[in-house]
Amino acid sequence: MNNYRNLRVALLGCGSVGAQVARILLEHEDELAARVGSRLELIGIAVRDVNTKRDVELPQELFTTDAEQLILGADIVIELMGGIEPARSLILSAISSGADVVTANKALIATHGEELAGVAEQVGAQLYYEAAVAGAIPIIRPLRESLAGDRINRVMGIVNGSTNYILDRMDRFGDSAEAAAAIASELGFLEADPTLDVEGYDAAQKATILASLAFHTNVPGDAVHREGITQITAGQIEAARKAGYVIKLLAIAERLVDDNGVEGISARVYPALISREHPLAAVHEGKNAVFVEAEAAGSLMFYGAGAGGKETASAVMGDLVSAARRHVAGGPGIPGSTHADLPVLDIENVETKYQIMLEVNDQPGVLAEVAGVLSEHGVSVARLEQSVPQDANGTATLVIGTHSAKESALAATVTALAASGAVSAVSSVLRVEGN
Amino acid sequence: MNNYRNLRVALLGCGSVGAQVARILLEHEDELAARVGSRLELIGIAVRDVNTKRDVELPQELFTTDAEQLILGADIVIELMGGIEPARSLILSAISSGADVVTANKALIATHGEELAGVAEQVGAQLYYEAAVAGAIPIIRPLRESLAGDRINRVMGIVNGSTNYILDRMDRFGDSAEAAAAIASELGFLEADPTLDVEGYDAAQKATILASLAFHTNVPGDAVHREGITQITAGQIEAARKAGYVIKLLAIAERLVDDNGVEGISARVYPALISREHPLAAVHEGKNAVFVEAEAAGSLMFYGAGAGGKETASAVMGDLVSAARRHVAGGPGIPGSTHADLPVLDIENVETKYQIMLEVNDQPGVLAEVAGVLSEHGVSVARLEQSVPQDANGTATLVIGTHSAKESALAATVTALAASGAVSAVSSVLRVEGN
Repeated sequence: MNNYRNLRVALLGCGSVGAQVARILLEHEDELAARVGSRLELIGIAVRDVNTKRDVELPQELFTTDAEQLILGADIVIELMGGIEPARSLILSAISSGADVVTANKALIATHGEELAGVAEQVGAQLYYEAAVAGAIPIIRPLRESLAGDRINRVMGIVNGSTNYILDRMDRFGDSAEAAAAIASELGFLEADPTLDVEGYDAAQKATILASLAFHTNVPGDAVHREGITQITAGQIEAARKAGYVIKLLAIAERLVDDNGVEGISARVYPALISREHPLAAVHEGKNAVFVEAEAAGSLMFYGAGAGGKETASAVMGDLVSAARRHVAGGPGIPGSTHADLPVLDIENVETKYQIMLEVNDQPGVLAEVAGVLSEHGVSVARLEQSVPQDANGTATLVIGTHSAKESALAATVTALAASGAVSAVSSVLRVEGN
Repeated sequence: MNNYRNLRVALLGCGSVGAQVARILLEHEDELAARVGSRLELIGIAVRDVNTKRDVELPQELFTTDAEQLILGADIVIELMGGIEPARSLILSAISSGADVVTANKALIATHGEELAGVAEQVGAQLYYEAAVAGAIPIIRPLRESLAGDRINRVMGIVNGSTNYILDRMDRFGDSAEAAAAIASELGFLEADPTLDVEGYDAAQKATILASLAFHTNVPGDAVHREGITQITAGQIEAARKAGYVIKLLAIAERLVDDNGVEGISARVYPALISREHPLAAVHEGKNAVFVEAEAAGSLMFYGAGAGGKETASAVMGDLVSAARRHVAGGPGIPGSTHADLPVLDIENVETKYQIMLEVNDQPGVLAEVAGVLSEHGVSVARLEQSVPQDANGTATLVIGTHSAKESALAATVTALAASGAVSAVSSVLRVEGN
């Protein structure tokens, strides 16, 4: 089996993922050698402090603080430091010295992925980042390879485990938003800065990566429309349930045609209603899933753990084996994939259904007035439910499900509804996805 | 973009999948060229009769009846004829002439996969067969590549759409087995010979392929334990529902250790109870899904269409693009994967939970007698439900859920129960999977 020289692997970073990668490399050395056709030799692990206690016991002599020096001798560099710098510079110098790079660095790929892929293509090196989106779930490789002969129309993912955990608790156990967030935080589901999760920043970075891959187009991070889950209330979840929906934070990348007939991409993150019959509705707790709609393949879903040291290490190892096989086999591997250059369209071009909740004065003529406002703006009503008034003021709740409408039409409708005498408050406007 | 010579693609067979592959090749020529870095030129389609009407309108001059001649000029051969011969001989001569081969031929890969892969490896050609298992769902590539650095413990799939359609109708609409099968047949879900579906032969071929890939071991078709769904009744489905389960026909490949401490593989197909909370329980109608448990990645699921011309064509096209990129890039691609050579263990070594249904005489001491028989054979009861007697003879139905037990212990238990005076009939014994 050992018919090729050893491949020298350098590891940058030794947090929960890095420690697991090092463990697997050392423990499964023979099995990996059989799969690759060559031994994978871990030549060192670059860390900030060689004396830090690690999740896994590893030989002390592997550790170094000199990352620059370490990567010079490597065939393959695994970057698990996170953050933009020094990760970006180290990856660039690894690529320039001819090494292949495997990274789990979502923020870096989302912001500098095109730059890194461009440099890699120039020198004939490869950049792998399966672990950057949806942890253990193989989604990058299916998008780049399995569906390479098909035409993807939409990618819709639950790609942030902590917000899914919060929304799932609210839906299945009737928790308030605060209670669910407290439990998520206690279980370590939320990032140190929970804003990254609950305001949708993390999901938006993954949407950038998914959109770029699915549509062979560079989608910059600031082109992703982003809304978080902080406005979601138990009342909205309950109203969604009554109408047969569950609320999920979705990262969506979609092929669209704008009003001028221009084909482009929409990339967006927001909490949306999705039918309880949809496969994404069954994604509970901190799990992730990516639902893909392709012209020929139809609907596909990829489901699994979106985070965790061991789980993410599995994706890193898959990339490492691919990189190593490429070394043994020769040849430059898969070419870069941003060749389509479709424009990224504004959220105004998106058309979805909506669920609108209004507080209305319970008096004759209210329904007619509300219906009038909707029809004036070309928004058509699919279903409507009015609660009995709950307080002395005679305020009732009106839940309206609309047919598909443009974002722009909806925005104008909501402004008009808020200004209407019959409506005391527009308490919720949420999109409905996945029809 | 066109920086490499055209790649010559020959198509063998032009049924529902072949016609879609030809359509995509012709319609998406430019897009495919951009993705591959070279034009894919369809040089001909070998068929039995050039005058047969096809699902898609295709240029008449592409058709030929001389498959042997056609493949001589090809860089990549796509085999979609099905059956063992002449498919096997044609693939062997394509490989021998240096071409890469893409096939959707499940029966051929299940029975001759090792032979074909061996010859391909010798000459440095590649054999791709993503479409042979679970249609459009990318499962082969994730198993061969994404999880190549992980250690798979179990693969459990719903890989036959027609039996899933039948069981799903029985479960969700209360259909009888006959009524559900009649609808499945009307909708074209069943093969010309429905035995292949309902007796589990089709699922067993897919189990062979999945087991071989997941465990890097050649698993011969006759080593797969196979039971079909023809014995499944509405009563069993109802009893499963009451206990929180749904019945699915599962193809399972699992890493096991036998009583002598020998590590091996179990490959089996049978209808089994699975918790309604399990992701596989939400796979409805004719959909397929493959659930994978790996040491580091944890639980993953791949879901989508398991059949259909367009859907299967998507998987074929993904393989074709991979093969074409390999030609452009050079190098031999992924090495063969049957290097572990684990023994295939008999079903006797499998340990699962069971649900047993008994018809018992409704008289004092019956429960004690039944419980005694179970405990004598080391089978422990997890739950038990006794119906009120429904007929004048005073016969009651007893539903027993067991803890995990070996197949051999269970077989002895069932024999003893059948011989017991308290039991008038053992009406059902089903395994419970997915704990």
